[in-house]
Amino acid sequence: MSDLAVGLDVGGTKALAVLVDRDGRVLDELRTSTPHDAHGGAGAATAKVLADQVATFAQRHGLDPVTLPIGIGMPGMVRRDGRLAFAPNLQTVSGASFPELLRESLGAEMVYMENDGNCAALGEYAWGAGRGIDDFVMVTLGTGIGGGIIANGELVRGQSGFGGEIGHMAVQARGALCGCGGYGCWERYASGSGLARLATEWAADGRLPRLSAERGGAENVRGEDVTRAAGQGLDEAVALMNDVAWWLARGLANLVAILDTGHFVIGGGLSVAADLLLPAARGHLAELAFGYDKRPPIVVAPSGLTVRAGALGAAKVAFDRQP
Amino acid sequence: MSDLAVGLDVGGTKALAVLVDRDGRVLDELRTSTPHDAHGGAGAATAKVLADQVATFAQRHGLDPVTLPIGIGMPGMVRRDGRLAFAPNLQTVSGASFPELLRESLGAEMVYMENDGNCAALGEYAWGAGRGIDDFVMVTLGTGIGGGIIANGELVRGQSGFGGEIGHMAVQARGALCGCGGYGCWERYASGSGLARLATEWAADGRLPRLSAERGGAENVRGEDVTRAAGQGLDEAVALMNDVAWWLARGLANLVAILDTGHFVIGGGLSVAADLLLPAARGHLAELAFGYDKRPPIVVAPSGLTVRAGALGAAKVAFDRQP
Repeated sequence: MSDLAVGLDVGGTKALAVLVDRDGRVLDELRTSTPHDAHGGAGAATAKVLADQVATFAQRHGLDPVTLPIGIGMPGMVRRDGRLAFAPNLQTVSGASFPELLRESLGAEMVYMENDGNCAALGEYAWGAGRGIDDFVMVTLGTGIGGGIIANGELVRGQSGFGGEIGHMAVQARGALCGCGGYGCWERYASGSGLARLATEWAADGRLPRLSAERGGAENVRGEDVTRAAGQGLDEAVALMNDVAWWLARGLANLVAILDTGHFVIGGGLSVAADLLLPAARGHLAELAFGYDKRPPIVVAPSGLTVRAGALGAAKVAFDRQP
Repeated sequence: MSDLAVGLDVGGTKALAVLVDRDGRVLDELRTSTPHDAHGGAGAATAKVLADQVATFAQRHGLDPVTLPIGIGMPGMVRRDGRLAFAPNLQTVSGASFPELLRESLGAEMVYMENDGNCAALGEYAWGAGRGIDDFVMVTLGTGIGGGIIANGELVRGQSGFGGEIGHMAVQARGALCGCGGYGCWERYASGSGLARLATEWAADGRLPRLSAERGGAENVRGEDVTRAAGQGLDEAVALMNDVAWWLARGLANLVAILDTGHFVIGGGLSVAADLLLPAARGHLAELAFGYDKRPPIVVAPSGLTVRAGALGAAKVAFDRQP
């Protein structure tokens, strides 16, 4: 049983590696750009980046990759056997088996893969804003919406390990087309790309006149313009952020009905806008959640581990699954 | 440890009582109308009916209510402590504590309460169409939609015990008003009342001309007219049932995304229409479920315990929770 583990969080733009002890303390950290290079077969270029990160830790800290537990968090549908069934935002790795690739390159024997949202949930449960909460939902607001569900103190992995893809719950069945091919997915309304979509729509409808003038045309208004302006108190931007918060609350309310969730942890890239979104979302949740006044207060907390939630959770997976 | 338990399933119109052994065999059964009488305080009239049912079993089979485990399945939000927080379809019992009421009237010491959808899930898991499946969702299609979630082999009760209220997940956030005060709840589209609502809408729009003529006016067309006519192959009725099946699949697809559900058990009163709904719903699910082609086949099975699922599950609760 190793006292240290490596957690690797592979995102669409960068791969974050952490070396962690059993108390969740980060002893070392590396950030590398994620390659989008299909040479050498599915995942080969990405596996090389990850192997280099592990090798760097091993060298700096006198560790042996063969006996070091390694967890990998991946965006997409990760099967229970560690194979990546589908990664829409990281096409070059679909179908890859990173445990096999890292065994080949490093001789690593203990490599475990899990969905990145599930990793974040496990990380927050162990060392973050979900500590001691046996029923909670992690919601990662990024370009899309990911997540992970803890119920009765355990991760809900489901039939194949694909549990927690909460961003593809339809909240408006006859609504906006999603990248997944479906319509009305939650992430089309309450994620970074949802914000961008709404910003484009509102600007085209003339509902963002100040921002459109400032950016030299409605067609130039971006999601980040809205968050910045909302932070400065511009009415039209605050109104749009409030709409995003309403949709965020709508999805949270669904999870409350289904799972009786009393505690949410909100992380991911868009949660930099948490100061703007969460207070409004809490208010909307009170109107939208089934039987709200019959329930104890529902906590909607920001992530405790912030950008490291996924990587720390991946390390936790490695600690838990090593033989 | 008693070898027998009583399961009581309290519906809006009738209370079903079963006497069950540890293998789920039904040794005796009683059906009584549910009173809607507020005299004597919350739940008093209903508690009297249930006490009479238990007393009848005790007398017929030479059992002592004091040592007989009794489980009660109730529609509504049942708290972990056995108190009914909210029962929108059974207003006279809101706030009642049946464990206390049955202790007073019968001296019963082992009385446990659980939501009826959760009971049905536990019943199917033990003895029905969910046997051996550690991750599945029970969906009860009645006037509304209830349900229960089994994940990692355990019931998902959530923070307060209110888990499984899947009918109040919004699938069309800007959609039809629900009795709960919300908009676009799944049960407004895919339950008995959803069918009735759609029948009224379609008839008013002139989309059910044959049925409207037959019933002497569009305003007289009822949900049961549609199911009957669809069973006889009338095109316009088959089309409406197909729409209901689409909405049924839309909600199931949401649960697939959230929980990676690979197995659904469909029960409840509307499941008499299962022959009409389930084949169409399976087809729509293939289009609607996120990453459907990356998953093993998803089973959508009819209930194994049919009308007794809730009562049998309540007995299972009693077996499991007795000290």
